[in-house]
Amino acid sequence: MKTDIDALMEVGQLDALWVMGRAQHNPAMVYLTGGGHLTNADLIKPRGQTATLFHAPMERDEAAKTGLKTRNYASYPMGELIRAANGDLFQAGVLRYQRMLQDAGVASGRVALYGKIEFGPAFDAINALARIMPDLELVGYQKQDVLAAAMMTKDAAEIERIRQMGKLTTHVVGRTADYLTGHTVKNAMLVKPDGKPLTIADVKSQINLWLAEGGAENPEGTIFAIGRDAGVPHSSGNPGDFLRLGQTIVFDIFPCEMGGGYYYDFTRTWCLGYAQDEVLSLYEQVKSVYQKVIDSLEVGASYKESQMLTCHLFQAMGHPTALEAPETDQGYVHSVGHGLGLKVHERPFSGATAPAEDLLVPGVVGTIEPGLYYPERGMGVRLEDTFVVHADGKFEIPAPYPMDLVLPVRQ
Amino acid sequence: MKTDIDALMEVGQLDALWVMGRAQHNPAMVYLTGGGHLTNADLIKPRGQTATLFHAPMERDEAAKTGLKTRNYASYPMGELIRAANGDLFQAGVLRYQRMLQDAGVASGRVALYGKIEFGPAFDAINALARIMPDLELVGYQKQDVLAAAMMTKDAAEIERIRQMGKLTTHVVGRTADYLTGHTVKNAMLVKPDGKPLTIADVKSQINLWLAEGGAENPEGTIFAIGRDAGVPHSSGNPGDFLRLGQTIVFDIFPCEMGGGYYYDFTRTWCLGYAQDEVLSLYEQVKSVYQKVIDSLEVGASYKESQMLTCHLFQAMGHPTALEAPETDQGYVHSVGHGLGLKVHERPFSGATAPAEDLLVPGVVGTIEPGLYYPERGMGVRLEDTFVVHADGKFEIPAPYPMDLVLPVRQ
Repeated sequence: MKTDIDALMEVGQLDALWVMGRAQHNPAMVYLTGGGHLTNADLIKPRGQTATLFHAPMERDEAAKTGLKTRNYASYPMGELIRAANGDLFQAGVLRYQRMLQDAGVASGRVALYGKIEFGPAFDAINALARIMPDLELVGYQKQDVLAAAMMTKDAAEIERIRQMGKLTTHVVGRTADYLTGHTVKNAMLVKPDGKPLTIADVKSQINLWLAEGGAENPEGTIFAIGRDAGVPHSSGNPGDFLRLGQTIVFDIFPCEMGGGYYYDFTRTWCLGYAQDEVLSLYEQVKSVYQKVIDSLEVGASYKESQMLTCHLFQAMGHPTALEAPETDQGYVHSVGHGLGLKVHERPFSGATAPAEDLLVPGVVGTIEPGLYYPERGMGVRLEDTFVVHADGKFEIPAPYPMDLVLPVRQ
Repeated sequence: MKTDIDALMEVGQLDALWVMGRAQHNPAMVYLTGGGHLTNADLIKPRGQTATLFHAPMERDEAAKTGLKTRNYASYPMGELIRAANGDLFQAGVLRYQRMLQDAGVASGRVALYGKIEFGPAFDAINALARIMPDLELVGYQKQDVLAAAMMTKDAAEIERIRQMGKLTTHVVGRTADYLTGHTVKNAMLVKPDGKPLTIADVKSQINLWLAEGGAENPEGTIFAIGRDAGVPHSSGNPGDFLRLGQTIVFDIFPCEMGGGYYYDFTRTWCLGYAQDEVLSLYEQVKSVYQKVIDSLEVGASYKESQMLTCHLFQAMGHPTALEAPETDQGYVHSVGHGLGLKVHERPFSGATAPAEDLLVPGVVGTIEPGLYYPERGMGVRLEDTFVVHADGKFEIPAPYPMDLVLPVRQ
């Protein structure tokens, strides 16, 4: 949680955090500012002290709304800096960074770097800054990333925002189901009133509309993949594909609050009209594994245990898994879940390389999403819910939704 | 244009481009892949050769859609790399980068780095890579950024996409005007059917809905600022503010194609019901400067000349400007325009520090957006259109829209 940051910085031997970039769709900056229309900013937080937010002159009102200490870039006039840098515009920017750090009280020590930004220019600028501030250690990669560790557990306000996003998500999923079943069938596919086949592009544009209506954004897109594409976990679906009866549809939806806020993550697998025995069997297996893994969740346990259990269960059913065949693209090919918050994938992780500290402690919000994929047989099944771990040991699914495989259609 | 990239690389003495990150909302990656649901990828393009796209196993279908050479990350098994790195996960990632570069035929030479990504981990990884590949020069900042220079001029297909985004933008602006004037007035402000005042948050949620309906995204948010906020160019507007008659509303809208594609950029200033003489005078001044600057545009001219002209015109009217009072926050406080494409602000630029090469050549798409700001007097006016420079010397405004200041309301 945010209140853990100073303690985590102490453990990580960091003297300051430095976040670059804008305050939308930039998780570290959204986390520490609360978001807003800041198109370019620097936030410098020394350990044990309030952060200073450096902002563009035109964005002073937005900066003030954050409640942080603010400082206008205009206090570092570029004309003067360019003169100090003998006319070198790049070096003038580096000098500005130096003065900002000094003004924030960070002239030496270990500083962790954050921000989702254009990599190139910052890469050279930070390396150049390191050369003129030799007492500063500018740290990119941290084995135990301090902000990621803080973000791994959510406070009540964050959980409530994720819950609201969950309610909107399942509302949109319900509207999508109604929209599909509201169409008529011709030649074993859904058709529009004009007789033309409904396409995945049509469905996705409705989904985006309903998400916007609910005040959400969909910056990562939606997975709505049918048939063989459903058998490739991250295939987002071919826009021109038709909605054919009896094919598996993997519908994975992960919107966030407007401006790049908190995410939700949810998947159902549907068949229109009917499901073949082979599909039904795959679905029943995934559903039973989903239920066993959900039932096995325990506060304080390692998230990896859920992945091990999932692999063992699928192995026992005769499927290849990520455990004994890490390179397989058939069977169970991913990890069973991941944390989510201001990123759709964040700590805790459950895969083989997840940190040992990734435990299901109170405040964790994550997913359980077992799946089976057989692209060459033209099918895939995944079922996913987001859960919240509560201090009383309960695992809450903030937005429950039926798991039915078959959506009835009007023949 | 894209076809200029190899020639620009030669001038910039670059042997390869390396783009990191996802293929949505990541301009360099969208530019070179065409976009798509690639959540994590590396694109390496040696000069004079096709790019290789390195992708996650689950995203092989999306990668194939780009038409580039593709290579699966699974060809670099992490288990083996971790052993080669003596168990160091971070160093294993660095070794993977080394092998990828070698496989793309880039073992030495100057490589420019691109991608909108989390800065920290990549910063350390690239520095570590530089240490184990001493024949490689990894370049972040380029004085004449090759991709930015290529992107500065658009081909016909890109211009058409921007034009379509323009048509959607002005369509949404028209719906917004109708929506506002469709409300009734009580206590000199717009009210909803239930008698409660209409708020900026209400207006913005409608705007997002209409943009989603049109297949657009609004990742940078909308500026819809009234009264004093309209006098602060980048204030996005206070969500709870009411729509009071007679106040200036600066409405600056800059959506992009779904997934982080091409942008449009457009601003009008409105007063509901009536405008005070003081506001009307400010508006007439901005409009006359807008027209003079538009009339002065010449193919091949420096964009900076437009900024100089704007400053001179506003100075002659008695306003402080960015020219003689660079730190002013009253009067004319920004530059007159900027290029746009896959970024809402990109080359060419028109401000004091714009490169000398930023000329209004055919294929350029940019904005003209003079404005006057007097926050302490509670008002601001900006008028902005996007233009396209054509080879025949014509400047096209792809989506013209009336400039009226006053929107009539039902009393």
